[in-house]
Amino acid sequence: MFQFEEGKCYKMPAHFGGAPFDPDAKAIYDDVVTVDFCYTTDAEKLCNYIPEGLELIKPELTIEFQQCRQVQWMAGSSYNLVGVTVPVQFDGQNDHLEGAFVLVMWENKTTPILTGNMMGVPKIYADIEDLHPFADDLRTRLSFEGKTFLELEATRKTAMSEDQIKAMATDFGSIGWRYIPKVGAPGADLSQPILFPMHRSPRSGWIGTGALKWTELTWYQNPMQFYIINELAELPMLDMAPVVITQGSQVLMEPRGHVLS
Amino acid sequence: MFQFEEGKCYKMPAHFGGAPFDPDAKAIYDDVVTVDFCYTTDAEKLCNYIPEGLELIKPELTIEFQQCRQVQWMAGSSYNLVGVTVPVQFDGQNDHLEGAFVLVMWENKTTPILTGNMMGVPKIYADIEDLHPFADDLRTRLSFEGKTFLELEATRKTAMSEDQIKAMATDFGSIGWRYIPKVGAPGADLSQPILFPMHRSPRSGWIGTGALKWTELTWYQNPMQFYIINELAELPMLDMAPVVITQGSQVLMEPRGHVLS
Amino acid sequence: MFQFEEGKCYKMPAHFGGAPFDPDAKAIYDDVVTVDFCYTTDAEKLCNYIPEGLELIKPELTIEFQQCRQVQWMAGSSYNLVGVTVPVQFDGQNDHLEGAFVLVMWENKTTPILTGNMMGVPKIYADIEDLHPFADDLRTRLSFEGKTFLELEATRKTAMSEDQIKAMATDFGSIGWRYIPKVGAPGADLSQPILFPMHRSPRSGWIGTGALKWTELTWYQNPMQFYIINELAELPMLDMAPVVITQGSQVLMEPRGHVLS
Amino acid sequence: MFQFEEGKCYKMPAHFGGAPFDPDAKAIYDDVVTVDFCYTTDAEKLCNYIPEGLELIKPELTIEFQQCRQVQWMAGSSYNLVGVTVPVQFDGQNDHLEGAFVLVMWENKTTPILTGNMMGVPKIYADIEDLHPFADDLRTRLSFEGKTFLELEATRKTAMSEDQIKAMATDFGSIGWRYIPKVGAPGADLSQPILFPMHRSPRSGWIGTGALKWTELTWYQNPMQFYIINELAELPMLDMAPVVITQGSQVLMEPRGHVLS
Repeated sequence: MFQFEEGKCYKMPAHFGGAPFDPDAKAIYDDVVTVDFCYTTDAEKLCNYIPEGLELIKPELTIEFQQCRQVQWMAGSSYNLVGVTVPVQFDGQNDHLEGAFVLVMWENKTTPILTGNMMGVPKIYADIEDLHPFADDLRTRLSFEGKTFLELEATRKTAMSEDQIKAMATDFGSIGWRYIPKVGAPGADLSQPILFPMHRSPRSGWIGTGALKWTELTWYQNPMQFYIINELAELPMLDMAPVVITQGSQVLMEPRGHVLS
Repeated sequence: MFQFEEGKCYKMPAHFGGAPFDPDAKAIYDDVVTVDFCYTTDAEKLCNYIPEGLELIKPELTIEFQQCRQVQWMAGSSYNLVGVTVPVQFDGQNDHLEGAFVLVMWENKTTPILTGNMMGVPKIYADIEDLHPFADDLRTRLSFEGKTFLELEATRKTAMSEDQIKAMATDFGSIGWRYIPKVGAPGADLSQPILFPMHRSPRSGWIGTGALKWTELTWYQNPMQFYIINELAELPMLDMAPVVITQGSQVLMEPRGHVLS
Repeated sequence: MFQFEEGKCYKMPAHFGGAPFDPDAKAIYDDVVTVDFCYTTDAEKLCNYIPEGLELIKPELTIEFQQCRQVQWMAGSSYNLVGVTVPVQFDGQNDHLEGAFVLVMWENKTTPILTGNMMGVPKIYADIEDLHPFADDLRTRLSFEGKTFLELEATRKTAMSEDQIKAMATDFGSIGWRYIPKVGAPGADLSQPILFPMHRSPRSGWIGTGALKWTELTWYQNPMQFYIINELAELPMLDMAPVVITQGSQVLMEPRGHVLS
Repeated sequence: MFQFEEGKCYKMPAHFGGAPFDPDAKAIYDDVVTVDFCYTTDAEKLCNYIPEGLELIKPELTIEFQQCRQVQWMAGSSYNLVGVTVPVQFDGQNDHLEGAFVLVMWENKTTPILTGNMMGVPKIYADIEDLHPFADDLRTRLSFEGKTFLELEATRKTAMSEDQIKAMATDFGSIGWRYIPKVGAPGADLSQPILFPMHRSPRSGWIGTGALKWTELTWYQNPMQFYIINELAELPMLDMAPVVITQGSQVLMEPRGHVLS
């Protein structure tokens, strides 16, 4: 019979075997382009999406596109993502920290979606075009089964200085809310805030301008996601910050993640 | 702030809202073609993949292809899957039943993969061709990022009688092993057998012949799945039963699922 | 050396060999669903797209979706298309006939696009969803690199009688304008109207209602097609006929095609 | 009515309008990675694929992978290709030149396939993975509807010097055989050798090692291409040259192409 071994990490299907736990394991992404759109929105509306236990720091929505290439754990394969985050604070008995709370993250490959969800990052699927670079313009769009719902467009204006780039190399934490439903009943077996630590090392960066456009959808166009898209589309864009573009490497430190308490 | 409501069901991202629990909710699939390949294999080797608590009934591997169309919860969209199952028995304190234990299930759409994993069905991604029907032959193949690893081929020989078709309309249960890893540590927060009940109503059926071909892979070709594919490929095909093909509807009764105990 | 043989048909790359010409060769499509949207539009505007030599019969635009499955020459594979046609008449020295002049045809597979273009059917690429059937509704949409440009929605209202279905089984002809550009110079090596004969045998049919929605695009969103989409989008929908839906088989008789003269 | 204008260039569908002919128009590809596998093969067998009028210079087959990004005429979009070429000489009344005769070229986007065929480059469709870079290894594979048929693997060993890189910046010519079939009859309306001029400007380069693996196919697995793949697979690999890898820009000068005579 198959037996789970002490001290090993498993993924479903677990019965084909696990791997030793390595607290220092790093998932290295050698070539990541990020494009960040950040805007002030309505604080009250935004709070509707912040679970109790987390506190909104400022009413600011960040839409970050990432083009992840040379992903080592995928043997050099690639994927794209768009994460929607807000800055929050957690003050528990043990943990006192700030981080980017992930409202939702779209990705265009199943494997990182699945492993991310298991760790509490609320990832769902969309087709996400690789960046279409044209002179200093960068464009991409998200769609689901042929229906566009988010279009992103940015223009590189000013290259960052070496000092600015160095200053962007930091550890940071995504905060997700892990929710594992009960089987055959309402409610959750697990419902808890999680810290997911990462490190980013940009090699180059630009400040620019940009715009994003949501298209509201019906149930028929995207039955599992339309309400998420529509609620985000309805959050007002009050004040758009300069767009920040970087290119460099990124490291995910999943074994350093933990449940916030 | 967002607050979870009593009696509601949520999916990640949970904070966009949940739905009331409906114990009678059914996921109706109006047009499902199934092609079943079933063969006797080595009992001892097969047992290596059966977790303690489940008991192998006979050393038989079933590779079932499903072409699922007109999926109502997907607003009429479609997906394909290939499930690898073995017949097992569970004898616990409360539950005493037989079912098809899912060793692994490949699907070509992320949404059912993600929801299935949360319920304990070990689904992972592959590109899976729609059936290529040519006269009475049906062919399909599974690949990952351009690398083929499983080819299926069946020929319809004899149409089933109405009585045979009626006899196939049954409730049945998939058994999965739900494994939700700890965050930042080895081991599991949840590790448990699950029953996932379904009902199948074929409208037509055929008995036929067929063949399947595994291709073993390296880490470089499919880093997250190669060992699963290779272990399955190494299970001997001792005696292939006639291939069974059906077309009809299928109903998933997720709220009737439960943790086996 | 490779030598072309008399009486053989070649496709690029030709030097891997050709096939004998068979005037009776038929390309059989065993399972084709068609959904036809037909509306009156502005005659003067429409004439801008009818080359000299062809004459507009009535100012009517037909947008036909086809879901082609069990395509024999593709070994049972499938593809979807949307053709935009107008009824025209050709009166030449030898040929006097009416047919559906193809303004443009989108398809989601390269092989039929390429062979069709060689025969004068102006096919270009789009992602085209399989039909999403939901109760009596059928939906699909066309997009290019993630940007939606045409959405189609139909509802089956009345099933056709056997006599109505039989009456729809006909030979018919698509008319294309074959334009093969000169190499390294403006103008054409070949510029000529072509008849492409087909036969349709519906097995079932419905009359229904429906709607279609164009989205105008920019060069950045679809640099090779935006102007085609925008010009079609600007043709007014003056009077929409009932939507016609059929399911059955279709036969392409390419060797019976000829240059109109 | 639509009328063709003198001096304009059209593409099917032509009746939506053409563009002025610009003899200096350049299609600029800002980011192209090339990986070249070159091996000696059997001269006699190879000659079977060289049409009369062209002369084999040496029995050498080059399999070139290109990852084309930032393609300006595609508004910054991208595609991959694999071209199979042999060095040939053309000695006609007017033209005396050497070039790479294209036996076949697979690409993963329809638009360049279609326009290339019209100019005589024998392009057909395959799914082609972006490069999977892992340390100094680069891997990719070609498949059609889920069935792998060519796997490429290279390792960067030595970076080229600046002089070596500069020396690789050259004009060069692809030679294609344009074959436009008659409609409704065997044989061709146009059957002619074509020169397609290009310019390559590498910014970096490596010499390395590598391997490629063909998988022979059946009609059922790839009905339009299996014989091409099988004939190429059967050409012996007698002596593999070092693999050459470059990264840089590329320019296609289609209006400078011409029919060889």
